[in-house]
Amino acid sequence: MPLMQSWVASANAPETDFPLNNLPYGVYDLGDELLFCGVAIGDRILNLTRLEEEGLLDLETGQFFGWGTWSVFMEAGQDAWDELRAWLMVMLREGSEAETALSKFLDAQADATMHLPFDIMEYTDFYASKHHASNVGTMFRGPENALPPNWLSIPIGYNGRASSVVVSGTDVVRPNGQLKGPNDDLPRFGPCARWDFELEMGAIVGKPSDGMISVGEADDNIFGYVLLNDWSARDIQAWEYQPLGPFQAKATATSISPWIVTKAALEPFRTSTPERERPLLPYLKEPGPMLYDIDLEVTLAPESKAETVITRTNYREMYYSAAQQLAHHTTSGCPMNVGDLLGSGTISGPDKGARGALLELAWGGKEPVTLDTGETRSFIEDGDTVTLRGHAQGDGYRVGFGACTGKTLAAPTIPDWAKE
Amino acid sequence: MPLMQSWVASANAPETDFPLNNLPYGVYDLGDELLFCGVAIGDRILNLTRLEEEGLLDLETGQFFGWGTWSVFMEAGQDAWDELRAWLMVMLREGSEAETALSKFLDAQADATMHLPFDIMEYTDFYASKHHASNVGTMFRGPENALPPNWLSIPIGYNGRASSVVVSGTDVVRPNGQLKGPNDDLPRFGPCARWDFELEMGAIVGKPSDGMISVGEADDNIFGYVLLNDWSARDIQAWEYQPLGPFQAKATATSISPWIVTKAALEPFRTSTPERERPLLPYLKEPGPMLYDIDLEVTLAPESKAETVITRTNYREMYYSAAQQLAHHTTSGCPMNVGDLLGSGTISGPDKGARGALLELAWGGKEPVTLDTGETRSFIEDGDTVTLRGHAQGDGYRVGFGACTGKTLAAPTIPDWAKE
Repeated sequence: MPLMQSWVASANAPETDFPLNNLPYGVYDLGDELLFCGVAIGDRILNLTRLEEEGLLDLETGQFFGWGTWSVFMEAGQDAWDELRAWLMVMLREGSEAETALSKFLDAQADATMHLPFDIMEYTDFYASKHHASNVGTMFRGPENALPPNWLSIPIGYNGRASSVVVSGTDVVRPNGQLKGPNDDLPRFGPCARWDFELEMGAIVGKPSDGMISVGEADDNIFGYVLLNDWSARDIQAWEYQPLGPFQAKATATSISPWIVTKAALEPFRTSTPERERPLLPYLKEPGPMLYDIDLEVTLAPESKAETVITRTNYREMYYSAAQQLAHHTTSGCPMNVGDLLGSGTISGPDKGARGALLELAWGGKEPVTLDTGETRSFIEDGDTVTLRGHAQGDGYRVGFGACTGKTLAAPTIPDWAKE
Repeated sequence: MPLMQSWVASANAPETDFPLNNLPYGVYDLGDELLFCGVAIGDRILNLTRLEEEGLLDLETGQFFGWGTWSVFMEAGQDAWDELRAWLMVMLREGSEAETALSKFLDAQADATMHLPFDIMEYTDFYASKHHASNVGTMFRGPENALPPNWLSIPIGYNGRASSVVVSGTDVVRPNGQLKGPNDDLPRFGPCARWDFELEMGAIVGKPSDGMISVGEADDNIFGYVLLNDWSARDIQAWEYQPLGPFQAKATATSISPWIVTKAALEPFRTSTPERERPLLPYLKEPGPMLYDIDLEVTLAPESKAETVITRTNYREMYYSAAQQLAHHTTSGCPMNVGDLLGSGTISGPDKGARGALLELAWGGKEPVTLDTGETRSFIEDGDTVTLRGHAQGDGYRVGFGACTGKTLAAPTIPDWAKE
């Protein structure tokens, strides 16, 4: 599929994340209290909230955009999803008669402050890149126990903390926590010294389920995708995670990009999960290609300095797809709700420059990463801004996600009652 | 404090769970679609929704009871909590002039179907009984690694699945899942064969926090407590839980008792956590007694047969209090919300008859429990009903929780696409 031309000129530039082929959904304000639902097109946002108020957007499936969240629209289901996308395609294409009427409802992305695009119900994080699991496993448990015995059979996941999910642009405060080095007798309480990012994709559940669903049904139930940075306190995690998994190490913040890229927009970029190294149980078998070919990169910028690309990888590197993860999530009868967010797990490729976390890139601090500024990093320092970017590359156009960015601020002062 | 006499005669019986001293909060219907907020008093429920509609309950702090949930009232904060309890104490005490007016608004508990009493925002489960952790650790990892190295320093917890929380009386369907015995080469997909209960208390967060709070503040933020059964698939758990913790093994259902027993009602029963075996970090130190002396028991009844008490223990056996758990939960900056539910972890006492799960009671199947019916149980069978009960014993009265019960139904038929 080639670039689809729009009368919004900036949407036709080959390097924009938001051509007519994309049409991702976000929530924003323009400097006052009002929250708008909008669609990114080039460097503009089409304001659906105001269009609906004015009667210029009148979907047969209902009214959805007065709530400052896309959750109401997601709840409406596939017919509404299809109707809106079809309407937008007609209205925004080059030559559309709607240009004059709609151009008044275009806001500049530069003027918009983005908000979480939907109500996060529950958040689950997975562990589905074999390269990442092998790298981290080698560091935490040694090369002979790198990949857990279940890893090739189960899309390993754990429940995260939905209340900690924030939108791109939100500052992230370095956590305090219990820390204990291998040679310490007792833990102490202090600021995390091994603060890290994790490059992930987030899949958004758009249809509820109550009982076990197949991989194909799971794929149908996914509304769209975002970039996701699962900020991680490696030192807190190392001390706390046995036997019940990561807890406070992952509860400070998880940042997501502000635009939901719909599954419809990603359809041309489907690709298959890799050859299985161990046969999967039938319930995890995919009826078709369930991954997407999405180029991903991460940059790190020290305070007031230029950013350096520190990793480049691709979502197709995953061993398990989001549809497989969601299907597995339902095996126990676990009810899934509209607005559940599934983190893919850190996306690492086979090469050193394709690793999706500083822990791996700097190999636990043994091989610090050198930035273009000449500084080195083993972990994130205060003032550093980490930015995730991603896009699927079409023929002369991109379906992009925008940026998922966050600056790390110093840990809170420890109150007197918590001091030793 | 002695029994406080009420004009509701059944509230003055020494064996009732619901004397005037208690006044727990629930949500119920009477056979149609309407949900009422009510207060248990003896074998009756005072219908606050109808009282508020009729203008007979007119709190200065606001109107709260038209929503079919206690969450709106919880959000209103301490002043509202105090005002309602004071009003109820005056209105329901023996000799109150309100008897004639209010007696029309008493519903029979026998006629009521109970619902979840509040909106469960997120659910966290802890692991805070030393006896339980030692028993399970011995079975899973051997006696030399029974207690994880962090256990005496951290109130170990993990995020559970809020969507799976159900009210007492809801049938629970045995899960299917990935199973792999120690001698199997590969896992298979089938019904859980080691289905278990966990006897816990649930603490309900009633005030939000955004940043680290002390144990004292955490105690202030707890609205009340329920009984909680964290149903567990031990075989699914054993295969899936490394390295990121339990996931589908705990996602089928968590049952809670329908009545929120407020912290105010439990105040006379405060007791201290045990002597520390290793010094705690200052942020976990308690400003006063934070546990409660609550007698607990569990019964198991095979299909259409009488129940047998299979364990008797007490909440005071815990090593960590809910206030300590909540304080630890906030160390990373994790935002806590009204309606967050914290499971205490399985409550086991030091004796064999005081263990809070069948896994421990029957020692992994090696020492099956004999029921009064003559049958034995290593794990829960289809048709079995497990019931948790608990109360604090006062001088001639009880502050009780009612029952937390659930019957296990057979696992769903495995669909053709999931068969091998």
